Amino acid sequence: MSSKRAADPKKLATELAETGRAFQARGWALGTSGNYSAVLRDKPLRLLITSSGVDKAYLNKKHFLEIDDHANILRGEGWPSAEALLHVAVARARGAKSILHTHSVWSTILSERHAGKHKSMAISGYEMLKGLEGVKTHEHQEWIPIFENSQDIPALAKEVDALLKQDARPHGFLLRGHGLYTWGDSVAQARRHAEIFEFLLEVVGRRELAEHAGKGSGWLLGN
Amino acid sequence: MSSKRAADPKKLATELAETGRAFQARGWALGTSGNYSAVLRDKPLRLLITSSGVDKAYLNKKHFLEIDDHANILRGEGWPSAEALLHVAVARARGAKSILHTHSVWSTILSERHAGKHKSMAISGYEMLKGLEGVKTHEHQEWIPIFENSQDIPALAKEVDALLKQDARPHGFLLRGHGLYTWGDSVAQARRHAEIFEFLLEVVGRRELAEHAGKGSGWLLGN
Amino acid sequence: MSSKRAADPKKLATELAETGRAFQARGWALGTSGNYSAVLRDKPLRLLITSSGVDKAYLNKKHFLEIDDHANILRGEGWPSAEALLHVAVARARGAKSILHTHSVWSTILSERHAGKHKSMAISGYEMLKGLEGVKTHEHQEWIPIFENSQDIPALAKEVDALLKQDARPHGFLLRGHGLYTWGDSVAQARRHAEIFEFLLEVVGRRELAEHAGKGSGWLLGN
Amino acid sequence: MSSKRAADPKKLATELAETGRAFQARGWALGTSGNYSAVLRDKPLRLLITSSGVDKAYLNKKHFLEIDDHANILRGEGWPSAEALLHVAVARARGAKSILHTHSVWSTILSERHAGKHKSMAISGYEMLKGLEGVKTHEHQEWIPIFENSQDIPALAKEVDALLKQDARPHGFLLRGHGLYTWGDSVAQARRHAEIFEFLLEVVGRRELAEHAGKGSGWLLGN
Repeated sequence: MSSKRAADPKKLATELAETGRAFQARGWALGTSGNYSAVLRDKPLRLLITSSGVDKAYLNKKHFLEIDDHANILRGEGWPSAEALLHVAVARARGAKSILHTHSVWSTILSERHAGKHKSMAISGYEMLKGLEGVKTHEHQEWIPIFENSQDIPALAKEVDALLKQDARPHGFLLRGHGLYTWGDSVAQARRHAEIFEFLLEVVGRRELAEHAGKGSGWLLGN
Repeated sequence: MSSKRAADPKKLATELAETGRAFQARGWALGTSGNYSAVLRDKPLRLLITSSGVDKAYLNKKHFLEIDDHANILRGEGWPSAEALLHVAVARARGAKSILHTHSVWSTILSERHAGKHKSMAISGYEMLKGLEGVKTHEHQEWIPIFENSQDIPALAKEVDALLKQDARPHGFLLRGHGLYTWGDSVAQARRHAEIFEFLLEVVGRRELAEHAGKGSGWLLGN
Repeated sequence: MSSKRAADPKKLATELAETGRAFQARGWALGTSGNYSAVLRDKPLRLLITSSGVDKAYLNKKHFLEIDDHANILRGEGWPSAEALLHVAVARARGAKSILHTHSVWSTILSERHAGKHKSMAISGYEMLKGLEGVKTHEHQEWIPIFENSQDIPALAKEVDALLKQDARPHGFLLRGHGLYTWGDSVAQARRHAEIFEFLLEVVGRRELAEHAGKGSGWLLGN
Repeated sequence: MSSKRAADPKKLATELAETGRAFQARGWALGTSGNYSAVLRDKPLRLLITSSGVDKAYLNKKHFLEIDDHANILRGEGWPSAEALLHVAVARARGAKSILHTHSVWSTILSERHAGKHKSMAISGYEMLKGLEGVKTHEHQEWIPIFENSQDIPALAKEVDALLKQDARPHGFLLRGHGLYTWGDSVAQARRHAEIFEFLLEVVGRRELAEHAGKGSGWLLGN
């Protein structure tokens, strides 16, 4: 997945903007939440990333910045989200070409539930899993790490970097009470992964809410 | 947030209309419900506000009236909602530049549940809270007052005015069995706040419905 | 609400078609379900009504027929739904100018639950009720009759006619496992009523599903 | 339903593409999931079918392939899904002219629940059932077979073929943890059937989740 040739920034910004508007329409990016990026160049690392605070219903190719691996702005107006460093960490640890971060109801609900004891959740048995790159069967078990949410993004980025370098399995991770990060070899692949995770989290979320209904504070596992 | 220079009414009406159509599409303004306003001038207070009874799917800039702080119509056709006085109260008590009122399923469900005993609810632990103006961490606890619904709007406006002047914390409030009021420094900020509250109320609502499932009349707390 | 002057068929067909497409988008008219009408003339009664079997996503003004009070076709291509006689019954019993029939998930779920024992359900305490014509306060109790579903539409039409002539309160009724009928003085008012009922049925449905969760076959009351 | 005259491939591709985009908008085809086909010719069998891996939000008439009854590509770019053989089986066993496969949240949830013991589920009592071709009353009981999901598609195609030839009742079937297959005499009829099944699965799914809430692992029947 490595190339030193620069990608086409306009094309990538257009693809990311379309993706962002589609996610907003589904309720995965309300309140200006979420951020989306694509790798422009590997060495040195250059990322195209959403400018912070934009209403994703109106996201267009002008709302993107070029940043380096310290989230310094090289081009464009506005400011990147503090979470830009998480995008850098994923790009580095995985060689991903695009990273997408959604804030959905179901990722929020399940990230809370499973954060406590196991700091992760696992999903298996669904055909939809086969849409995750490299997965060949619905019997695959997708293990999804869950990080405690933090406002110390550099520290969180280190944790993410360490885990993703150490464990090649995950196609995405959750931040507790916050949302999903996923990625891919292209904007299209990252978008496919985001849709697959959001779908599976809704399926599992509805089932788990029902299974544990009526148990009061029992919703949070192991806390 | 105070200025005596008049704002551009056409621009504000266009922004409010776009916001209203987007809310209607999400089911937050069915049955012609909801009303939206922006401050045209501070002193004397002049508000641009939706004309009552309009299907929000078709809301456009012509559906707005200019009113004074007694909800007298200064310009435009039609009638303001009786709730215009709540908009006036929020504009006064908070210096808000735009006030938005939604009628969603989740705000209705949770406003009923928490109205009885505590006359409020609190939400904390979610990253989405950081989108509320001035909030710096997901550990923030957002306290949401809930007022009993009433058809005596002048009396209700006084209650709202008194609470908002006394307590600077809330970014919005609920009316029992009725819906959400929120506001901001601009239409965009008020819209961001509305989306954030609606998102959080859905997350909390789904979890609370599950936690208290099977308890029959136990849904209403402390009644 | 009575007038012998013929209404404008093109305008009414356009309004009904827009309404139908909007309802389909919300999932209230899947699988070609639902039918919509408007009164063209009172005496003798002439109704404009959807042709049967049309995908409501593509409903346009050409998909409407003119029928008399025995559902004989006077103009237009295709066939009216067998349920046209229910539209006739509502137009007669209430002098309604437009009748709308939706098939939503929540009206289906609640029509089953409350059909058995009480053959009706009641909703009160919600501000949204004030959008029903003539209702002045959220304390209003809206009583919604529920008829057993039947394929003998003439017999069902007589039941509907009898009840609506005898009881002036309802703004709509449910057919068990089937859906909602509501009406108004105009297409716009009937559409407002449909949106209000669908909203309230979702609010009540979510709450009742939770309250009775885990009770197995207890979902159906009194059966 | 049999004819040797070739159908119009462009018209069918356009209809299938419109159907696919509409399904994607409803969340029934996330993550590039789902595949759609129409019969071009009976003898020898020729199918027009979606090329694999396309984001269904952007599906257009160019994303279709012509295949024979061994899923060999005769025309078009890309590759058919491995599941093309299931489309062939349905076309053969039922003389269907169009076959649609959706991946919805509710079909996934219910296919898991009912797969274990009975390898099927039954739905009755809903008016919406009358939209299934040949069904005359809501009292109809629609029996929906559920097959274990498998990556051995030729073996699964044989199972599907055997059951559909032996039992003329089903208008569709589920694959466990995977989704719905349904079909019809035309793209429009298959689409109507898909919408009806998805609607009914949501109604039944919401009710069953509630009825069995709080029972922990009790969600899966008979496992």
